[in-house]
Amino acid sequence: MNTRKDILLNAFTMNCVGHINHGLWTHPRDRSHEYTRLDYWIETARILEEGLFDAVFIADIIGVYDVYRNSIDLTARESIQLPVNDPTLLVPAMAAATRHLGFGVTVNVAVEHPYTFARRVSTLDHLTNGRVGWNVVTGYLDSAARAVGQAAMAEHDARYDRADDYLDLLYKLWETSWEDGAVRRDRAARLYADPGKIHPIRHDGPFYASQGYHLAEPSPQRTPVLYQAGTSGRGQRFAARHAECVFIMASDPESARKTSRQLREAVVAAGRRPDDIRILAGLTVVTGETDAVAADRLAEYLAYANPEAGLAHFASGSGIDFSRYGLDDAITYGPTNGIQSTTAAARQRRLTKRQLLDGLALGGRYPLIVGSGESVAAEMQRWVEEGEIDGFNLTRTVAPESWRDFIRWVVPALQERGLYKTAYREGTLRRRIFGEGDHLPERHRGRQLREAARIAAA
Amino acid sequence: MNTRKDILLNAFTMNCVGHINHGLWTHPRDRSHEYTRLDYWIETARILEEGLFDAVFIADIIGVYDVYRNSIDLTARESIQLPVNDPTLLVPAMAAATRHLGFGVTVNVAVEHPYTFARRVSTLDHLTNGRVGWNVVTGYLDSAARAVGQAAMAEHDARYDRADDYLDLLYKLWETSWEDGAVRRDRAARLYADPGKIHPIRHDGPFYASQGYHLAEPSPQRTPVLYQAGTSGRGQRFAARHAECVFIMASDPESARKTSRQLREAVVAAGRRPDDIRILAGLTVVTGETDAVAADRLAEYLAYANPEAGLAHFASGSGIDFSRYGLDDAITYGPTNGIQSTTAAARQRRLTKRQLLDGLALGGRYPLIVGSGESVAAEMQRWVEEGEIDGFNLTRTVAPESWRDFIRWVVPALQERGLYKTAYREGTLRRRIFGEGDHLPERHRGRQLREAARIAAA
Repeated sequence: MNTRKDILLNAFTMNCVGHINHGLWTHPRDRSHEYTRLDYWIETARILEEGLFDAVFIADIIGVYDVYRNSIDLTARESIQLPVNDPTLLVPAMAAATRHLGFGVTVNVAVEHPYTFARRVSTLDHLTNGRVGWNVVTGYLDSAARAVGQAAMAEHDARYDRADDYLDLLYKLWETSWEDGAVRRDRAARLYADPGKIHPIRHDGPFYASQGYHLAEPSPQRTPVLYQAGTSGRGQRFAARHAECVFIMASDPESARKTSRQLREAVVAAGRRPDDIRILAGLTVVTGETDAVAADRLAEYLAYANPEAGLAHFASGSGIDFSRYGLDDAITYGPTNGIQSTTAAARQRRLTKRQLLDGLALGGRYPLIVGSGESVAAEMQRWVEEGEIDGFNLTRTVAPESWRDFIRWVVPALQERGLYKTAYREGTLRRRIFGEGDHLPERHRGRQLREAARIAAA
Repeated sequence: MNTRKDILLNAFTMNCVGHINHGLWTHPRDRSHEYTRLDYWIETARILEEGLFDAVFIADIIGVYDVYRNSIDLTARESIQLPVNDPTLLVPAMAAATRHLGFGVTVNVAVEHPYTFARRVSTLDHLTNGRVGWNVVTGYLDSAARAVGQAAMAEHDARYDRADDYLDLLYKLWETSWEDGAVRRDRAARLYADPGKIHPIRHDGPFYASQGYHLAEPSPQRTPVLYQAGTSGRGQRFAARHAECVFIMASDPESARKTSRQLREAVVAAGRRPDDIRILAGLTVVTGETDAVAADRLAEYLAYANPEAGLAHFASGSGIDFSRYGLDDAITYGPTNGIQSTTAAARQRRLTKRQLLDGLALGGRYPLIVGSGESVAAEMQRWVEEGEIDGFNLTRTVAPESWRDFIRWVVPALQERGLYKTAYREGTLRRRIFGEGDHLPERHRGRQLREAARIAAA
């Protein structure tokens, strides 16, 4: 449905060493171990902005991958999302070094009370001048629950009920507490803000209660662009109600199309328009000047990748300790609670361990396109058209080399096909993604709560 | 006691418009309303680093000042710490623009579970290369309690009990979960980290429970430099146990000395050394080329300052709605729960409202020194020597002008007296403050918990 729209492109990364394609940190040119350094992130942001990426999408996880061999042994050795640092703190430094690049930041609703989280996000939206998106996740690791003093992770659907309540409270703070025009900054009248246009909100939800003023004045987008990943039934209802960008994981365009249609139907059922959401598929690309050069580069990367590390990662996503199986044992898995912040295989699958490892040759489970810029662009076009999606979350392989390669070879080929912008549009992240509007559209739940939430300041 | 040590100097500010000296946002040259812009903060950081400031100390408040006239009317009009944005998110951008400046960031222990907060701080310490301090506050506003769904703020001493527990859990994560040498980054051996040197912590405290690995690898300082403000009996015991820098508010050197001696005695009673803490007094300076120029500048500022706004701020600190009193009514106040993150008047005082307003001529309650660089330096020396303190938290008046003025006129005069460094030392914030050691000293509780906290990884 989107052939005449620009493909949306996010760089998918994480404030850690091994993110998706595990083992590649051992490649001599990989610099992902520099994740603790601001200059590494600033350079990354500048590269991505040169490539006109819409956003850098920063995953996160609370907890550790300890299902495989019932330990963190391989997790520590291959730095499989451990150590992992806070994602939000990368944004201000990357924002200062760029002007258009957006930031999709993953934050689990279990981390912080919505009252203070609302301010944290408003602050990011102010400092970036309206370039912030929030990837809403509810978590899935028992190790995370134990870390914050709970016996076990809440049941899957209950986590979404809680997230619904969390968002409703956020909407009240972001959308209703400060009216448009409340901030005057009138020195002569000694009137920074008009107290008559600032209202306390009240929320008495099933999980959260709050009474008070939003601490931050309205930011450019008020509510950040809402990202979500989750294609379970309950996750899809959540996305249909809240999400503006949905991140899916599909093995091929056909399964992408199936998910895309389901999502858009659910969005319409929630009173929104089918193109009120943008759908992005996870994708790994290895490219070069020619198909042959790209194939060589893949072969080189494969020598450093670790499929077993990918399996250890997937063990926590699926809850299956694959170390207990022989190579030719058939293993039934899925649907699961999700793989890090992404959607999991939504259907039951049955593969041998050998087949699973074959699919993890580059250390990750994302679909892989290998070829020249033109070959990759053609295949991406097929994904967009046949898969009925709007764009991609592009994983890193050897960082930052793989961003540079993609920009050098694939971006011009996409532009040649009229599929990719040749300059950034001006404005907030939301306006650039949807072509209009800095704020949530009127038909979004966040806007509809406006009247319900407002109570008299007196 | 510190005449031969360099005076420690923090720039005291906040991610908001009106911080301490209220009303000055209306001054034509004041730029504090640019607080939502990264370039304003980056410029501020560069100015402070030129002036060899040890750190920028960023206050914070959760909740609003609504005691005065039982409303936020004046709070909104004069932007008395409302709106107020998140302080932590300023640090990465300021850190990227500087190399030595430290960052003292105020975060209330009520905001976030210690497990994820530990990672947030470790991330800051990594990104700044060991330049982070944390100002531990427990909050005092009922409006904050209501905002996060509680009926009222917990009783004063109970808040410190809770903070003790919070810190003990943090120490386990920061100090014990990852051993020194756990991170190897050995590509050839495929060994990012040695799993045998990463341990889960276990904490079953009265307020917090946690079981798990710290998510972040050890940062340069592990535990950030711990700042605290609080001179109540319970607050002083808390400081004696945990704090490395204590921020006090004293009206004159004599009262500073009294507090300083009490604090150092309490520190010794807690098994530490008297110089294991550095004591900084809040201070406002208005300076210029000569005493006469400085006096003129003060007169100019006074025309924009708003003493009533200072009183509204103090109303929430003291719990007294001063609007209900006439100018010549005597008002008894204190001791209180503290004024924003600072210590309050520790003794009962009795002043008329007129006298209170006289003390708030510049819109704030901090001691004021007005004069040429040499006059100010002489008075600061008297404070340090007679007050037995180590340095100052310097408030802003007209920003960033007042930083520039201080650096232009006072810093050279302090250097002339041998009281102020002429170049930064290298190393972490802790090393630069104490002259040695990147980590907490062995005699600090955070280090002593190491053995108690470690449990076998098996």
